[in-house]
Amino acid sequence: MTYSYDVLVIGGGHAGCEAAAAAARMGVKTCLITMDMNKIGQMSCNPAIGGIAKGQIVREIDALGGEMGHITDATAIQFRMLNRGKGPAVWSPRAQCDRGKFIWKWRETLDRIDKLDIWQDQADELIVENGEAVGVRTIWGVEFRAKSIVITAGTFLNGLMHVGHRMVEGGRCAEPAVHHFSESITRHGITAARMKTGTPVRIDRRSVHFEDMEVQPGEIDFHQFSYMGPHRVLEQLPCWTCYTNAEVHETLRSGLTDSPLFNGQIQSTGPRYCPSIETKLVTFPDKDQHPLFLEPEGEDTNEMYLNGFSSSMPMEVQLNALHKIPALRDAKAYRPGYAIEYDYFDPTQLRHSLESKIVPGVFFAGQVNGTTGYEEAGGQGWVAGVNAAIRCGGGEPFVMHRDESYIGVLIDDLTTKGVDEPYRMFTSRAEYRILLRQDDADARLTEKAYQLGVAGRDRYDWWLQKKQAVDELIHFCEQLPIKPAEINSTLEAMGSTPLRAGCKLSDIIARPHIELKQLAESIPALREKLDSPVNRKEEIAEAAEIKMKYQGYIERERMIADKMHRLENIKIKGRFNYSELHEISTEGRQKLERIQPETLAEASRIPGVSPSDINVILVLLGR
Amino acid sequence: MTYSYDVLVIGGGHAGCEAAAAAARMGVKTCLITMDMNKIGQMSCNPAIGGIAKGQIVREIDALGGEMGHITDATAIQFRMLNRGKGPAVWSPRAQCDRGKFIWKWRETLDRIDKLDIWQDQADELIVENGEAVGVRTIWGVEFRAKSIVITAGTFLNGLMHVGHRMVEGGRCAEPAVHHFSESITRHGITAARMKTGTPVRIDRRSVHFEDMEVQPGEIDFHQFSYMGPHRVLEQLPCWTCYTNAEVHETLRSGLTDSPLFNGQIQSTGPRYCPSIETKLVTFPDKDQHPLFLEPEGEDTNEMYLNGFSSSMPMEVQLNALHKIPALRDAKAYRPGYAIEYDYFDPTQLRHSLESKIVPGVFFAGQVNGTTGYEEAGGQGWVAGVNAAIRCGGGEPFVMHRDESYIGVLIDDLTTKGVDEPYRMFTSRAEYRILLRQDDADARLTEKAYQLGVAGRDRYDWWLQKKQAVDELIHFCEQLPIKPAEINSTLEAMGSTPLRAGCKLSDIIARPHIELKQLAESIPALREKLDSPVNRKEEIAEAAEIKMKYQGYIERERMIADKMHRLENIKIKGRFNYSELHEISTEGRQKLERIQPETLAEASRIPGVSPSDINVILVLLGR
Repeated sequence: MTYSYDVLVIGGGHAGCEAAAAAARMGVKTCLITMDMNKIGQMSCNPAIGGIAKGQIVREIDALGGEMGHITDATAIQFRMLNRGKGPAVWSPRAQCDRGKFIWKWRETLDRIDKLDIWQDQADELIVENGEAVGVRTIWGVEFRAKSIVITAGTFLNGLMHVGHRMVEGGRCAEPAVHHFSESITRHGITAARMKTGTPVRIDRRSVHFEDMEVQPGEIDFHQFSYMGPHRVLEQLPCWTCYTNAEVHETLRSGLTDSPLFNGQIQSTGPRYCPSIETKLVTFPDKDQHPLFLEPEGEDTNEMYLNGFSSSMPMEVQLNALHKIPALRDAKAYRPGYAIEYDYFDPTQLRHSLESKIVPGVFFAGQVNGTTGYEEAGGQGWVAGVNAAIRCGGGEPFVMHRDESYIGVLIDDLTTKGVDEPYRMFTSRAEYRILLRQDDADARLTEKAYQLGVAGRDRYDWWLQKKQAVDELIHFCEQLPIKPAEINSTLEAMGSTPLRAGCKLSDIIARPHIELKQLAESIPALREKLDSPVNRKEEIAEAAEIKMKYQGYIERERMIADKMHRLENIKIKGRFNYSELHEISTEGRQKLERIQPETLAEASRIPGVSPSDINVILVLLGR
Repeated sequence: MTYSYDVLVIGGGHAGCEAAAAAARMGVKTCLITMDMNKIGQMSCNPAIGGIAKGQIVREIDALGGEMGHITDATAIQFRMLNRGKGPAVWSPRAQCDRGKFIWKWRETLDRIDKLDIWQDQADELIVENGEAVGVRTIWGVEFRAKSIVITAGTFLNGLMHVGHRMVEGGRCAEPAVHHFSESITRHGITAARMKTGTPVRIDRRSVHFEDMEVQPGEIDFHQFSYMGPHRVLEQLPCWTCYTNAEVHETLRSGLTDSPLFNGQIQSTGPRYCPSIETKLVTFPDKDQHPLFLEPEGEDTNEMYLNGFSSSMPMEVQLNALHKIPALRDAKAYRPGYAIEYDYFDPTQLRHSLESKIVPGVFFAGQVNGTTGYEEAGGQGWVAGVNAAIRCGGGEPFVMHRDESYIGVLIDDLTTKGVDEPYRMFTSRAEYRILLRQDDADARLTEKAYQLGVAGRDRYDWWLQKKQAVDELIHFCEQLPIKPAEINSTLEAMGSTPLRAGCKLSDIIARPHIELKQLAESIPALREKLDSPVNRKEEIAEAAEIKMKYQGYIERERMIADKMHRLENIKIKGRFNYSELHEISTEGRQKLERIQPETLAEASRIPGVSPSDINVILVLLGR
């Protein structure tokens, strides 16, 4: 049995779903192969989307015409904007979602995409002919031929789960591992290694003493991930917090010799910023408590997720420790926390399009590239899907730069620096944070996605309307003259220096700690403006205010970024045989030889390549 | 890690869910162990509940306080009452359900049962001590101790799936098989063998030419499975029918040598009344067409189920054949049909309580007893759950007789006759069909379930109200005098003999082809009566009418059943060493020795035990 497609996507998780949706929307015949149609878009770990830097990625996926934002909005049971106390560069939306509804919303979304078929099966072999990937054979013996293949296998490749000394093969709790497929990839020179991740125990709501926890409600203000319009909101539910204590730590410590992380059973590296509770104890021996967050898994279920308590300790150790926390003294579990080891492929063997440099035609996205997180996976999935589709027609790859999106930062980091532990996005990984805000991903990306054909006309129109309203509001503020007499008492009340002479409203907005909404109370013209129907959407005033307040910062970062772009334009791929360039440091030579950067900017970001190495290349290039 | 429960249920399918719910409602501490909490109550094959004789079982489960009826009502996307053209003894409700919503409704239902915990894990070993089952060890190394253990493992035990020559281990498509557990059961003398079942290809709605199919709408009249009150109704969707043809058959025949059913690859027996399409061809070589039903899998999905096309032929044969049907000429599949072989345990080793005769403390229900069908599984599950709970307190098992319920017939058939192919319920298996109607399962069973404590007060009150209304309506009809003048023209119009003298209304209702509703048009007092609020529910008039019309039949069957009960009361278990009773036929001796029937009635139903064998026993008993 043989099927032919333009694009084949292997895996129906967060990367695979975005890849399949994006490719099909680009107009090419696409097939998503998933082992289980009931688990499409399954949130394998915590039932939440977004968070610091991750929320920005979701906004970017949405601005690009992807689906994670819509699906989060439709299934969210708690919205929060993290980092509100800090500058808007790091504001990050986050939502708890209903795990079951999230899956069905993805299923429904994919079902409605025209050029997209779904096939339930398991990939068994990557078919490579003349050095190029041309298809996949499944365990049911079907041969799928395709122009581009996107592999998004998550933690399934040779997945091995650990709880204490027990080891069980599987791609995820209750799901079989995938054997053979990984070997059929590495056979062609693609390098694989092992990583580890983990997930905590799930708790029965009925066994929790909520009176001994702090409630953590969502924000009352309305927020959403998608830039496109309002959506139906599910009932909003609170999360809860409590802390570990000395007794908990003592119980966990007593079991460390049976911990697969510390007794040699697990050799691979887990996510640094999402460590197991036992790793926290070992890394921070002086801390006498760690916060835990108890999060609902959905509207209708008793199942709750214990964020912060990821573990692969023996089950009795996990539960005995848990029972030392007053609120969880009677906690009943649905299953233990566990660790899982899985294969990933060296991302430095990928182009920025996420196509393999070694085997053209095959793209990789998500955890198979050594990342962690649904959002990181989704962003890569979108990029791989779009570029897989572009490859079918032979066009130029679509690549986002580091000053354009967190997704661009992510992929640049992966492909130039590689990974030795699961890679998670942070705002600190971006050098142009003020350019990469959650409020303006549409400004950065929607037009490009529309030109590519992956974002629809409706999305583009949403963006045009918003842009017009924001520009108009800024223009209004830049034009509105303010006299000292009408504002000084307000400014003084806010602790801001009074005006000596008249100025424009925008000058006042640019001051720190001055909020547009507050000013509106003293300035009737502004109040009226903000009350006009077009500006009533929270996001219009927010976007305009941020642009006025941070204009200076934004322009400065823009300038630096543009300088760097000149290096991006200096192509060096294939120009040098690095091993002969003895002017370059040994480490630099080895890294450059291995990674084969496409541009000088990329070369400059490779760890171990020094500024003087870059200078050598510049000289050799005659610059 | 050790947990202690009263009742442990292994498996979260239709049998396991009913067992767990029933046991917990009986007030004992219960734990359901399921491999995957996202697949609780999964409809592994067609997305429909009920049908001929099966619909009656669902009504019985509901009358007993079980859940299948409620869950079907809440998730049904098409209701029909089958066999309406025949007598009410064989009327059978059937509903298509939304597969995804069915799962979540089960999850929600179990979540709300007080004494019930859920644990996600896989049973690895039945723990037997001193010949008695005392617990289960899981693959994560947890030891669950319990007074009673109910095993409802479905097709998972050593499950092996077939598509053409390809074989893949698994308990169901995309789910791992369970190894070791079966062996840990047979080690103690319980006999296992293999059975086979299958499922058809799933089709993408967008690829179907509906204009070439016949639509099969649901009934407009409102129907429901639960006797308890009205429920929210989902949007009702049509099914579709088409037929195979000579070309389809030719394509399938050309692949028969590659069919695992006919090339020796599958040795075990599949369900006779739910055969694969290739089996139909071989069994009925002269038929030039077979009907197929295309059924929606849910409200929001493109996935459709092709009822009637179950197959384990090579995939290309399945699809090539499909494409020879005009409506399906472009059909896209989500996955092929497949066959699955699995372990079951000889049900003649079970008591009527479904407890093992060999290893006390362990109960079996569902496909592991060699049955097929969600309803058969659910009914057994309820019985096993209730008796598992009773065993904890040491009470008398709760057993239903053949004149009380289809579930009673099912279990009596299983335990006395055994199975050599998957057992499916039919009305023809019941000798007291007129006593086992879909309209009166509550009359037969609800009071008993309420006395047992498994049905709640609310259900009992529903039943009392209905009973009162029905009795009152019958009393009214039995009292209302009818004069020839007022009815004869109506009777003549209906083709019924005119009255010569006055009679009671009930006498007229007893006539064939006379409907209560029609009579109401000519008899104002009846019309008024039926219009009173209490009688407005369709089921009141229906139940009263059936009781009046079929009173004679009902009484006659009741009498025969009561006679048989006398044999049921003659206990013989343990009274004889059959191998020494040379007056009994050799076959009779062997069967009696093996099955060890508890009563003389049971002995009389064992295939191979002749009436003269029964007479011998009667004589030996001194009767």
